[in-house]
Amino acid sequence: MDQTTAIPFDDIRALVKSMPGPDLGAMELVTARDAVLTKPPGSLGRLEEIVAWLAAWQGRAPPVVNRPVVAIFAGNHGVAARGVSAYPAAVTEQMVANFARGGAAINQICLANDLGLKVLDLALEIPTGDITVEAAMEEADCARTMAFGMEAVAGGTDLLCIGEMGIGNTTVAAAIFAALFGGPASDWVGRGTGVDDEGLARKREAVEAALACHRGHLSDPLEVLRRVGGRELAAMAGAIVAARHSRVPVIVDGYVATAAAAVLFAVDKGAVDHCLFGHVSAEPGHRRALDRMKVRPLLDLGMRLGEGTGAALAAGIVKAAVRTHAGMATFAEAGVSDKAEQG
Amino acid sequence: MDQTTAIPFDDIRALVKSMPGPDLGAMELVTARDAVLTKPPGSLGRLEEIVAWLAAWQGRAPPVVNRPVVAIFAGNHGVAARGVSAYPAAVTEQMVANFARGGAAINQICLANDLGLKVLDLALEIPTGDITVEAAMEEADCARTMAFGMEAVAGGTDLLCIGEMGIGNTTVAAAIFAALFGGPASDWVGRGTGVDDEGLARKREAVEAALACHRGHLSDPLEVLRRVGGRELAAMAGAIVAARHSRVPVIVDGYVATAAAAVLFAVDKGAVDHCLFGHVSAEPGHRRALDRMKVRPLLDLGMRLGEGTGAALAAGIVKAAVRTHAGMATFAEAGVSDKAEQG
Repeated sequence: MDQTTAIPFDDIRALVKSMPGPDLGAMELVTARDAVLTKPPGSLGRLEEIVAWLAAWQGRAPPVVNRPVVAIFAGNHGVAARGVSAYPAAVTEQMVANFARGGAAINQICLANDLGLKVLDLALEIPTGDITVEAAMEEADCARTMAFGMEAVAGGTDLLCIGEMGIGNTTVAAAIFAALFGGPASDWVGRGTGVDDEGLARKREAVEAALACHRGHLSDPLEVLRRVGGRELAAMAGAIVAARHSRVPVIVDGYVATAAAAVLFAVDKGAVDHCLFGHVSAEPGHRRALDRMKVRPLLDLGMRLGEGTGAALAAGIVKAAVRTHAGMATFAEAGVSDKAEQG
Repeated sequence: MDQTTAIPFDDIRALVKSMPGPDLGAMELVTARDAVLTKPPGSLGRLEEIVAWLAAWQGRAPPVVNRPVVAIFAGNHGVAARGVSAYPAAVTEQMVANFARGGAAINQICLANDLGLKVLDLALEIPTGDITVEAAMEEADCARTMAFGMEAVAGGTDLLCIGEMGIGNTTVAAAIFAALFGGPASDWVGRGTGVDDEGLARKREAVEAALACHRGHLSDPLEVLRRVGGRELAAMAGAIVAARHSRVPVIVDGYVATAAAAVLFAVDKGAVDHCLFGHVSAEPGHRRALDRMKVRPLLDLGMRLGEGTGAALAAGIVKAAVRTHAGMATFAEAGVSDKAEQG
C-alpha cells in the first residue's frame, strides 16, 4: 500500500474535533410545532424526541427521511483462525454475495421499511492481523479504511444506518470495549453467532491475549482501533464522522457497530451525539457498552445478527415518527379542544 | 334498547370457552424453515418468536400479513364529568372527526406502515353511567357492544391492531385493573393525557369510589367490564374474541386496550394467547398489568397516546419479521456454509 496517500490519525482527529454541533433553532421549531399537534404534549414519547434529534442534526425543520440508506461494512479478521466463531471465515464473503442476491435478513427488512442498501466490502481477501499477537492494521491502512468508510454518505442520504458482517468481529469488538472502558474480558465477551462453552473460552482468551499483547499502547482510542480493531470497524467510524460533517443523522446497529462508535466517543464525548442506537442486542456486553456511553437504545428485541438489521428496524420507527410530525393536524386545524380550553 | 336482541353474558362466556387453540403444526413448519435460513439460529430474537406465534394463530405456515387493520374504538364515559382528564369530553368526538380527516397520529403511522384503519364509534352521544355511583352499562348494552366489536374482523384481515379513544377511559381502565388484579387504586392510576396533581387525586378518588360502589359484584370479570368499564372496552374485548375464532392474531395497544384484554384473561388465562402486546406505555400501571398477565410488550417508547399508535408501530416490526421469514435464502440456496460444516 502506498504510504503517501495515507491520511494520518492527526487528520482524523482534526475531522472529529471540527464536527458541527446541533442546530438548536431547528430543534426549537420542531418543539413548537409539536406543542400544537392533536395529541397531549409528550404523548408520543420517544417519537417526539427522535424528531427533535433529527432536526438538530439535519439542521432542518421539519426533518425529512426521504433517502434512508443502510450501509453494511464487511471485513475479515486474522483472529478468526483461533476458533472464536461458530462459523468459518469464508462465511463473510458468502454473506456478502447473499446480500447482493437479496437473500439475507437485512435485504428483507430494507424492503419492508423502504430503505436503500449499500454493501462495502473491505479487502476481504486480506484478513487483518491476528490481534492476539500483532496489530490488526498499520496506521496508514486504518486511516485509509476510515476514509473509505466516509464514502458511505457520498451518494446522498438523509438517514444513514450502519451495520456490519465479519466472522470474528464480536471478538474484536469485545477487545475494543475492554481497551476503551476497562474491566475483565469476560465483561465484554459473549456468544456472538452462538459459540459453545469452549468457543466462549477461546474468545475470552483471545481478548485477554490481545490486551496483553498491546498493553501500554491503548490509551489513544485510534490506536485501540488499529491495534485490536478491524477494517469494518474503522470504516464504520469513518462513516459516522463523515455523516456528522454532511448533516446526516446515523442509526448505529448492534454490538460491533457500537464498538466503532465507542472509539469516537472515547476521542470526544460529543462525537456520537448525532447517532441513535437502534437496538440493544442479545450480546450481553452491548447493554454494558451503551450504559457506559449513556445512551438508550430504541429497541430491545433479543436480536444478535448484525448486518444492520436492528438499525434498519429502528429506521422504520424513525420514519413513522417523522411522518407523525409532518402530517398531523394542529388543534386549530382539526377543531379539537386543547387542554388550555378546559374550564 | 331492545332487550330481546341482546346476547347475554353466558353466550359471551361460551364464545370465550370455545376459542380454538394454536396450530402447532404450522408453528413447527416455521421453526423448521427458520433453522435453515442464512443466519445463526435464534439470531433474529423476537422476530423469530413473532413469526412462529403468527403461524400458530393464523393456522398457516408461512404466516402472511397482507391485510393488516387498525381498529380504533371510541366511547364516552359518565365519569369524565368528574374532572379525571386534562381534556373536555367533547374531545372524543372531535378526535373521531380528526381520524376521519387523516389528521391524527394514528393516520400517519398507518400510512408509514401501510395499515388499514377503521374507526368504530360507540354511541358517543350517550356516555356510559358514572362508575363512581352506578354501573357503566346494563348487561344487554355491554353484551351488544361486545358483539358490535366482533365486527372489527368482518371485512377480512390477517392482523388486527386494536386501540381506542375516549376521554376518561384511563380512569375506567384503572378501575378494571384494580377490580381484576387487586391492590390500591394508586397502583393503577396514572396521569393519562397529562392531568396535574389535583386531577390525579380526583382519578384515584374516582377509582376508589367505583370499587366501593360495586363491592361484592366484582368477582365475575364480565361484571367488572359492565360495571366499571366502558363501551370501547367492551367492544375491544369482543374484537379479541372474534379475532381468535377467525384465526386473526391481534396486537393490543396500550393501557386501556390492555384492560379489555385483561377482562378476557381473567375469564380464561389462555384467552389472549393470540394477542401480542405492542408496547408498554408511559402510564405506570401498564407495566404492572402486563406483568400480572405474564406478557412481554414488544416496544417501550414512552408513548401514552392510545389510538392504537403503539400497536401500529409494533405492526411494522411484525410485517418485517414475516418478510424475513418468507424472503430469506436458505444456507443451501445461498451457498453459505452452515455452522455444522465447520471443522
